[in-house]
Amino acid sequence: MKEFSKMNAEEQAELYQQLLKEYNWYCAMGLKLNMARGKPDADQLALSDPMWTIVDEHTPMVGADGMDYRNYGLLFGTQEARKLMAEMMEVDWQNVIIGGSSSLVMMYDTIMRGMMFGMLHSPEPWFSCRDRKFLCLVPGYDRHFAITQDLGFELIPVPLFEDGPDMDMVERLVKDESVKGIWCVPKYSNPSGITYSDEKIRRLAAMETAAPDFTIMWDNAYGIHHLYPDQPEEIADIFALAREYGHEDRIIAFASTSKVTYPGAGIAALAASKANLDYIAKHMTHQTIGADKLNMLRHTLFLKDLEHVKQHMARHAALLRPKFELVLNQFAKEFDGCNIAQWTAPRGGYFITFDGPEGCAKRIVQLCADAGVVLTDAGATHPGKQDPQDRTIRIAPSLPPVEELSRAMEVFCLCVKLAALEKLQKN
Amino acid sequence: MKEFSKMNAEEQAELYQQLLKEYNWYCAMGLKLNMARGKPDADQLALSDPMWTIVDEHTPMVGADGMDYRNYGLLFGTQEARKLMAEMMEVDWQNVIIGGSSSLVMMYDTIMRGMMFGMLHSPEPWFSCRDRKFLCLVPGYDRHFAITQDLGFELIPVPLFEDGPDMDMVERLVKDESVKGIWCVPKYSNPSGITYSDEKIRRLAAMETAAPDFTIMWDNAYGIHHLYPDQPEEIADIFALAREYGHEDRIIAFASTSKVTYPGAGIAALAASKANLDYIAKHMTHQTIGADKLNMLRHTLFLKDLEHVKQHMARHAALLRPKFELVLNQFAKEFDGCNIAQWTAPRGGYFITFDGPEGCAKRIVQLCADAGVVLTDAGATHPGKQDPQDRTIRIAPSLPPVEELSRAMEVFCLCVKLAALEKLQKN
Repeated sequence: MKEFSKMNAEEQAELYQQLLKEYNWYCAMGLKLNMARGKPDADQLALSDPMWTIVDEHTPMVGADGMDYRNYGLLFGTQEARKLMAEMMEVDWQNVIIGGSSSLVMMYDTIMRGMMFGMLHSPEPWFSCRDRKFLCLVPGYDRHFAITQDLGFELIPVPLFEDGPDMDMVERLVKDESVKGIWCVPKYSNPSGITYSDEKIRRLAAMETAAPDFTIMWDNAYGIHHLYPDQPEEIADIFALAREYGHEDRIIAFASTSKVTYPGAGIAALAASKANLDYIAKHMTHQTIGADKLNMLRHTLFLKDLEHVKQHMARHAALLRPKFELVLNQFAKEFDGCNIAQWTAPRGGYFITFDGPEGCAKRIVQLCADAGVVLTDAGATHPGKQDPQDRTIRIAPSLPPVEELSRAMEVFCLCVKLAALEKLQKN
Repeated sequence: MKEFSKMNAEEQAELYQQLLKEYNWYCAMGLKLNMARGKPDADQLALSDPMWTIVDEHTPMVGADGMDYRNYGLLFGTQEARKLMAEMMEVDWQNVIIGGSSSLVMMYDTIMRGMMFGMLHSPEPWFSCRDRKFLCLVPGYDRHFAITQDLGFELIPVPLFEDGPDMDMVERLVKDESVKGIWCVPKYSNPSGITYSDEKIRRLAAMETAAPDFTIMWDNAYGIHHLYPDQPEEIADIFALAREYGHEDRIIAFASTSKVTYPGAGIAALAASKANLDYIAKHMTHQTIGADKLNMLRHTLFLKDLEHVKQHMARHAALLRPKFELVLNQFAKEFDGCNIAQWTAPRGGYFITFDGPEGCAKRIVQLCADAGVVLTDAGATHPGKQDPQDRTIRIAPSLPPVEELSRAMEVFCLCVKLAALEKLQKN
């Protein structure tokens, strides 16, 4: 297709009318497609259904810790679950705490502990730091941003490049003592799908920060979520690097089985230095007696070890890959030559970042919604939901079946073109 | 037996030597008995083992909310679980939030929300109230006290009588604006086992408090945990009473299935006014996408409704009652006439409160520990673990099998007598 901006007004108007006709045809279909969140689809969920009855009357109820899985106890979770998650997180099992079904809750608790008591090296609780700030990589994950926003942090946007954070900017910003931390999704980042380079990770580990309690929220949500398991992207060991510089306590890492087994009923984990774990335990012991050990047991029986986890994740990949490829192929075909859009081509994770023409993201999302296709809100990829260029949209291809996804993307591409033409006509 | 204080020094010394011989005989047995916490025993746990495989390939994965139990969603939990817990808590299901496996975590989160954001009617976050205070009924539950202590509240002890709190004292104390709340276990209280009278509950609901954000932490942990299911103790509906006085937002109620199904793997619930739930949701939406719905499903399939829950709880009672009766009979027999001890005779819950001679509780617990019988720490029943009279001990009869419990109580009674005689000899 011809470059939109090189069409004359008449051509643009003609194309617009033609696309509008198509759009109205889709609207009349009464579609109801939801691509708002990164939810696994029904086939993916079914992969873990053997877990339902995996604990039965033959299952020993006492594990390595010598305690009944059904009763109270084990603040940090069962040894078996800690070992499983440690393998997935590439850390020592004694550095792991198993939580409930959500790593988001563990992140929230971590920030809340910082607010209330301070982190391990805090001079005072974060609550008492009136102009507290948190670095937010953009495009990024709305739920990360929302936690720190609700707790009164000023959110400072920092560009996320193809190989990780704009480290020059990060290094400059952390000279301010009131900058208390940064949210990171280091592998297959949400939503751009990029993976941090070793060099960027080393700089995060090495940099000197004015705040002694600067915290890297290392949300490795997609650490084993490769779309191409034969060519997995790997990241540097941030804990090992941080140890080199004496900054190990700076990092709190998170992972979960939400997109390995079940989003609503997985197990979550936090990994940190021994000193951090001791500090966390001091307060955590007042909060809980320990998370659901029967669910940990189900997971350790079902997932067994890293080798089995990888096999299981390859089955997820086989279901997800065609969806990602469908979206990317459709983008390539529909926007070829138009010069109105850019997008990322992730090799793992759950999202694609799409950049439309400036000032069009909200309009595109609205047009899609009017046609029955619900996308993640425009702006959600930016702190405070404010995308200053109004161009970035998070695409979540996982939930709809392939047929529906294909239909949804037809609608989406149409809406992008309509919005782009509307903008050109206005200029 | 003769009253200890009426024996002469010789008689006391002779008895002491005789008891010491017995004590040494027990010590030589190398006992290892733990009565520190209110844990259900293995037979009680087994009552819920049918739950393991209750979700299977025939179970529909979509409930009343139209959402897949396995996927993300439902901040307040499934409708089925909310209805089940609402029946148990005697509230409307729309006033219920289902949490993870622990009501303690929900209490902690509630207090943390108060600290960070304030409660619904707070003029400022509790964190900003420098001389914040919380009322602690004694004897009471150490984990309640510990939450508010760790969060910097001054803990004010208030006597808990046989029919509930010393309300004259409570009403006096709440005239101080910095008194922000009170911990209550209204039925079969931990650890005395007493149940609040309707009049006491009415006064809690009616009283005027200086703090607009005064909060009653209504931990109805043992609401259906009767030892004598044919003669259950019931309590007044505090929400209904509070509505009469316009104080409904004052109450946050909690319950769980920790001692219905599994302590490590039950479901927890919070009940509160609609206004409170709206307020909680505002912050909770940043904390979690919702708790484990598969575990809610296991519970609703297994426990079905209040009628089935009652039948299930009667099976617990049948296992627990003999243990409570054993302890109470042993106390009556061993301390008959000695005039050195008092104890409560609960008709539900998990604990008995034992009061020994003043200044002896720590010594008794130590003597027991030396003989291999671990009790709850002396002092645990009081805020800050400080029992000014050093006489109260929490007895938790549930965990040991009957044989072991009997043995443990023999040791305990011996230790009480030894400590009492030591004290008399010192005077």
